Amino acid sequence: MIAYDEAWFAARAQPGVQRLRAYDPGHDLVALRRRFRESQLVELGSNENPYGPSPAARQAIVDQLHALHRYPDPLGADLKRALAARHGVHPSQILLGNGSHELLMMLGQVFAGPGEDVVFSRYGFAVFALATQAAGATMRVVEALPREHPRMPLGHDLDAITASITDRTKLVYLANPNNPTGTWFGREAFAAFMARVPGEVIVVMDEAYAEMADADADAASALPWLASYPNLLLTRTFSKAYGLAGLRVGYLLGAPGLVAVMERLRESFNVNGPALAACEAALGDEAHLQCACARNAEQRSALSDALAKRGLRVYPSQTNFVLVEFGSRTAQAEADLVARGVVLRPMGGYGLPDCLRITVGDTDENRRLLAAIDAVLE
Amino acid sequence: MIAYDEAWFAARAQPGVQRLRAYDPGHDLVALRRRFRESQLVELGSNENPYGPSPAARQAIVDQLHALHRYPDPLGADLKRALAARHGVHPSQILLGNGSHELLMMLGQVFAGPGEDVVFSRYGFAVFALATQAAGATMRVVEALPREHPRMPLGHDLDAITASITDRTKLVYLANPNNPTGTWFGREAFAAFMARVPGEVIVVMDEAYAEMADADADAASALPWLASYPNLLLTRTFSKAYGLAGLRVGYLLGAPGLVAVMERLRESFNVNGPALAACEAALGDEAHLQCACARNAEQRSALSDALAKRGLRVYPSQTNFVLVEFGSRTAQAEADLVARGVVLRPMGGYGLPDCLRITVGDTDENRRLLAAIDAVLE
Repeated sequence: MIAYDEAWFAARAQPGVQRLRAYDPGHDLVALRRRFRESQLVELGSNENPYGPSPAARQAIVDQLHALHRYPDPLGADLKRALAARHGVHPSQILLGNGSHELLMMLGQVFAGPGEDVVFSRYGFAVFALATQAAGATMRVVEALPREHPRMPLGHDLDAITASITDRTKLVYLANPNNPTGTWFGREAFAAFMARVPGEVIVVMDEAYAEMADADADAASALPWLASYPNLLLTRTFSKAYGLAGLRVGYLLGAPGLVAVMERLRESFNVNGPALAACEAALGDEAHLQCACARNAEQRSALSDALAKRGLRVYPSQTNFVLVEFGSRTAQAEADLVARGVVLRPMGGYGLPDCLRITVGDTDENRRLLAAIDAVLE
Repeated sequence: MIAYDEAWFAARAQPGVQRLRAYDPGHDLVALRRRFRESQLVELGSNENPYGPSPAARQAIVDQLHALHRYPDPLGADLKRALAARHGVHPSQILLGNGSHELLMMLGQVFAGPGEDVVFSRYGFAVFALATQAAGATMRVVEALPREHPRMPLGHDLDAITASITDRTKLVYLANPNNPTGTWFGREAFAAFMARVPGEVIVVMDEAYAEMADADADAASALPWLASYPNLLLTRTFSKAYGLAGLRVGYLLGAPGLVAVMERLRESFNVNGPALAACEAALGDEAHLQCACARNAEQRSALSDALAKRGLRVYPSQTNFVLVEFGSRTAQAEADLVARGVVLRPMGGYGLPDCLRITVGDTDENRRLLAAIDAVLE
């Protein structure tokens, strides 16, 4: 008699899946929203954009409601044309994903397998590890810059990453700026890195937060290097600066040959109809994007100062969140904050149990956050 | 000097992806819609539901527009509760997918690998082959019932499928009713099949068209057998009877242990916010569903008769489409129909180059379709 429990199905699964643990999306916000009246919950755990999307994105969805019974465009041609124009690339260099999460997973599935290595930084975006494990490949986790680093504590150590590449390495995942640390690296360091990476290794640069970096912060985008390094690609998302996390749209920019191979595995209708329409409309509203990023930068600076004034260590960030050390009080503080309706993201899963990741909210959210922190740390 | 073309990237890819060819979604409808004014195009190539979704589904999306900047519920808890109530299962038996396409692909990725077999019928749903190839597993394509079969030509041959199962077999994919043939099998045959399948083999039953089968047609659903056979699961979709193809929502019903293992690989936010809300609302409008299915059954019968009267062979169907033999005139007829703005689905990719698959439209669409066929075959 077979028991047919999770262990039985796991034993029938492929090796990568046997060891896999699912992505941790944080607190059950639907339950918390029911527990607290909506006006009382301060949701700063998921790096969402408090300013929301362009009104044009909402209108584009309304304009699509008559066509919900039709499949979305499997080519995503209109959105790709708009993205190509924005980034100065050819539409054949673009792959659309159901969030960049899907694209990062697909990269692992396509290019990495058992007996092969995937390299990424400790405290790198959680999906890098999931994609590697799901593919059954070996994770080479490179130590991050130390907490004592004068300029970029917990940041990617590009020299160490280069040094860990061997002839078994198929992929390198980087994130710039990185989630959950908020850290970044500059153009000169990235140029030196690419010059040393063997041309057979595919370098994935996740730029989910790129639009939010200050222009003078020197957070490198891979975009200017795509033409020189066809083994380099980047991923971006509409979930952050564009305020469209609810729609799940990410995209990849890379060499046409890379995109063509990835297209073999992409599910034809992976981005749904309302999402395609809304993202195309959002791209057309540059003023809204710039305004949201400017407000975020202001609030990030003010929030970082206010937290530091309270004696908390705030890591440098070019994103819409800050990583903050709460030390030995972290777990208790987090629980107390949730009890008051303030939701942050615990970092134990990242190996940073003495830190919380705090999304930069709008003025009102940050005010309520700071008041709750004051009450909890009293 | 590396060339970095598609061949280079394909050579770097995993074996399954090296041989993979992407799903063929048919004609470029966006381009055709621009070529023909919308009122002139007759879109009968994608088995979409001409009656559209419940108005409650559209309203649910409108009600969500203020929350587009929030991530969707990663648990999909509300939709799962509604589905559990509808099907008399526990929420832990449900997995949500970005279309059932995603779920069918994931099943291959989780449970099949190199050196292992996946069994399905010739003319079975195209994604079965893609899922097997992507996983790097071996396809065991079982001959369908012959065209001369008195009752179910081109249908699944369940005896032959059983006979092709070996100890290398990890998965069997069935579809009932099946796309693109429209064929189905009954409860007695399915019971006999399940009684003979070894308990170590996972049986996947795709029921994308189940709601459209006549109550007296004896098209078996796997639902009543789930409790007896934990190695059995079924997939369904909101794209067909619910008229929500634009949103990409499918679901799997199976054993809690199976769902738990699949959850490890599922991307947390794979179903987007508007889609979750709209599907939950659609489930609440049973009258709309029943009305659409009843109208489809009437039109399927009328269209089948009208095509048969024109001397075309129409295969039996319990879906919202019919497979029709056009013989040696097929390719020319299809091209002539597209030129007149009537879009059907060519079947060359399925190894049925003398057939076209025709979605059952509403009264007006079917009238225009028949007029165009008359003109083209004249």
